Amino acid sequence: MAAKKKCIEIVEAKRAGFCFGVKRAVDIAFDIAGKNKGVYTLGPIIHNPQVVEKLEESGVKVVDGVEGLKRVDVGAVIVRTHGVPQPVMEELRDAGYNIIDATCPFVKKAQHYAKLLKEEGYKVIILGDREHPEVKGLMSYAGDDVIVVKDETEYSPMSGRVGIVVQTTQQIETLKRLLSFAVERAGEIKVYNTICNSTALRLRETAEMAGRVDVMIIGGGKNSANTTQLANLCKSMSVPTHHIETADELKDEWFNGAKTVGITAGASTPDWIIKEIKCRILDIGGRRCDGNGD
Amino acid sequence: MAAKKKCIEIVEAKRAGFCFGVKRAVDIAFDIAGKNKGVYTLGPIIHNPQVVEKLEESGVKVVDGVEGLKRVDVGAVIVRTHGVPQPVMEELRDAGYNIIDATCPFVKKAQHYAKLLKEEGYKVIILGDREHPEVKGLMSYAGDDVIVVKDETEYSPMSGRVGIVVQTTQQIETLKRLLSFAVERAGEIKVYNTICNSTALRLRETAEMAGRVDVMIIGGGKNSANTTQLANLCKSMSVPTHHIETADELKDEWFNGAKTVGITAGASTPDWIIKEIKCRILDIGGRRCDGNGD
Repeated sequence: MAAKKKCIEIVEAKRAGFCFGVKRAVDIAFDIAGKNKGVYTLGPIIHNPQVVEKLEESGVKVVDGVEGLKRVDVGAVIVRTHGVPQPVMEELRDAGYNIIDATCPFVKKAQHYAKLLKEEGYKVIILGDREHPEVKGLMSYAGDDVIVVKDETEYSPMSGRVGIVVQTTQQIETLKRLLSFAVERAGEIKVYNTICNSTALRLRETAEMAGRVDVMIIGGGKNSANTTQLANLCKSMSVPTHHIETADELKDEWFNGAKTVGITAGASTPDWIIKEIKCRILDIGGRRCDGNGD
Repeated sequence: MAAKKKCIEIVEAKRAGFCFGVKRAVDIAFDIAGKNKGVYTLGPIIHNPQVVEKLEESGVKVVDGVEGLKRVDVGAVIVRTHGVPQPVMEELRDAGYNIIDATCPFVKKAQHYAKLLKEEGYKVIILGDREHPEVKGLMSYAGDDVIVVKDETEYSPMSGRVGIVVQTTQQIETLKRLLSFAVERAGEIKVYNTICNSTALRLRETAEMAGRVDVMIIGGGKNSANTTQLANLCKSMSVPTHHIETADELKDEWFNGAKTVGITAGASTPDWIIKEIKCRILDIGGRRCDGNGD
C-alpha cells in the first residue's frame, strides 16, 4: 500500500492573525491580570470572543461602560485596542481609576491627527464605519461637526479646507477614491494616511491567495470588522469563502473537489485558533483520501 | 433660386479666450503704457504674439531679463501673468524700479502656498511643466529641494510629509492620479488644488464640444501651454484639430465634408482673433455652398 497522499494542499497566509497592536494589548491584559485583582476592560479588549473568554478565565472581566465600573471593585481598567472617546478617558481619569491604556499605537496616532486637524481649522472627515468603536473614538477628537463617510458616495463635495483621517483598517483604494472625489472641489486637503500597514499587507496577501485556491477559510470573530473585510474581499473574487470563529464550524462538504485551501485570519485571531483550523482541514483531507482507498 | 444654405455650422465655446488673470494683465499694460514712457515687461506679458505686438505698438516693450533693463531707460517694469522667481522680484525691488505686478492673482496664491508648504517642513512637489515660467516662479518659493513632476510617472513614492501645489493650468485628472499614487506611501499629504477654475471649465467645455463636431479649431499662441493643451485634448479624442494663431492660417480643405466646426481659444487669445477666425470659417462655408450651386 502506497503512502497516504496529501489530498488537500493548504496555503497558509504569512500575515494571518495578531497584528502588533492586538498582540501588545493581549499581552498587557494577561500581564495585568497576573498582578491585580478586579481587572476590567471597557467593552471586549479585541473583537475575538475566544480570546476574551480566555482572558475572563484569567480574571479580566468586560464591562460595557464607565457606569458598569461603579458597581464593582476596580483594581485596574484596561482601555481596549480600538481606544475610547476622549470624554470617556477623561471620566476614567477624573474618577481616579488605575488606567491601563492598551489602545493600539496606530489608533492613538489617528486620534492625535483628528485632534490636530480640528485645531488647525479643517473641516474634519473620517473615512470609516461610524458604528465601529475606533471611529467613535476618533470622532470625539475631531470636533462636533466631524463628518464620517464609509466611502466617496457618502461625501458631499465641499470647498475650503478639508482634513481627512482614516480608520486604521480601511482599504487604500477607498481612500484613493475619496481623495479623487474631494480634490475636485476642495481648495486644500490635508490627509493623514492612518491606514495600518499590517492591514494593507494582509489584504494584499489575501487577494493574492484567493486568486489561486479553490476555497478560502477566514478565521476570526464574527464581530471583527477587519476579519469580515477579508471574507468580503474573497467573496468579491468569486472564490467559495467561509468566515469561521473556530475549527468546530468547519464542514466536510465545503472541501468537496477542492485541491487547494487558503487559510488566513483577522488581526484579532490568536495563533491557536489558526492552528486548530489548519489541523482540522488536514484531517478532512486525510479522511477523504482514505475514503478514496488510495 | 433658394436662399443660401448655411453650409458650415459653427459651435463657439462660451469660455474661449481671455481668462480673468490675462484680461487684468493686458488691461494693466495698456493703462500703464498710456501714462508712462519706457514701459517694459520681463518676457512677453502673455503667451500670445499678436497681443504682445499690439502692446509694442502702444509702447510696451519686452526685455528678456533684469540684465536687459540695465541698458534702457525704464519708466515702469511689468511683471507678467505667469509671475517671476522670487530672486528676480527682489532684484527689481533692490534696483528701485517702478514695479507693476500683473502676476495672475491665482498664480500669486500658488506661489504663497508653495512658500507655506516649504515653511511648514513639507517635501514640496509641484505638479506642472518645469520649463514653464509659472512653474519656474513657483519653484523659487518652494525651496531648493523642490521636485517638479509632469504626472505620477515622474513621482518617486516617498514616505513622510508631502506637500503638493499645482501649476494653475494643469488638468484635475492628472492631480487625481498623482494623489492616488502618492497617498500609498506618504504618511501625510497636504495638497493645494491651485488649478484655476477657468482652465478646468474650459477643458471640460472643449472636451464636450470635440465630442460632437467634425473639426476643431483652437485659436491661440503656439507658445501658449494652455492653448496647446486644448489642442492635444481634442486630438486625443480623434477629432481633426488645428491649432492656429490667426485666421490667415485657416485652409479651405480642412473643412471638406465638415458640417459642424467647433471653435475655442486659449486663455491668452484676444476676442478679435477669435472673431476673425469665426468670420473666415463662415466665409469658407459660404463659398462652398456657392460652389455647390445651391
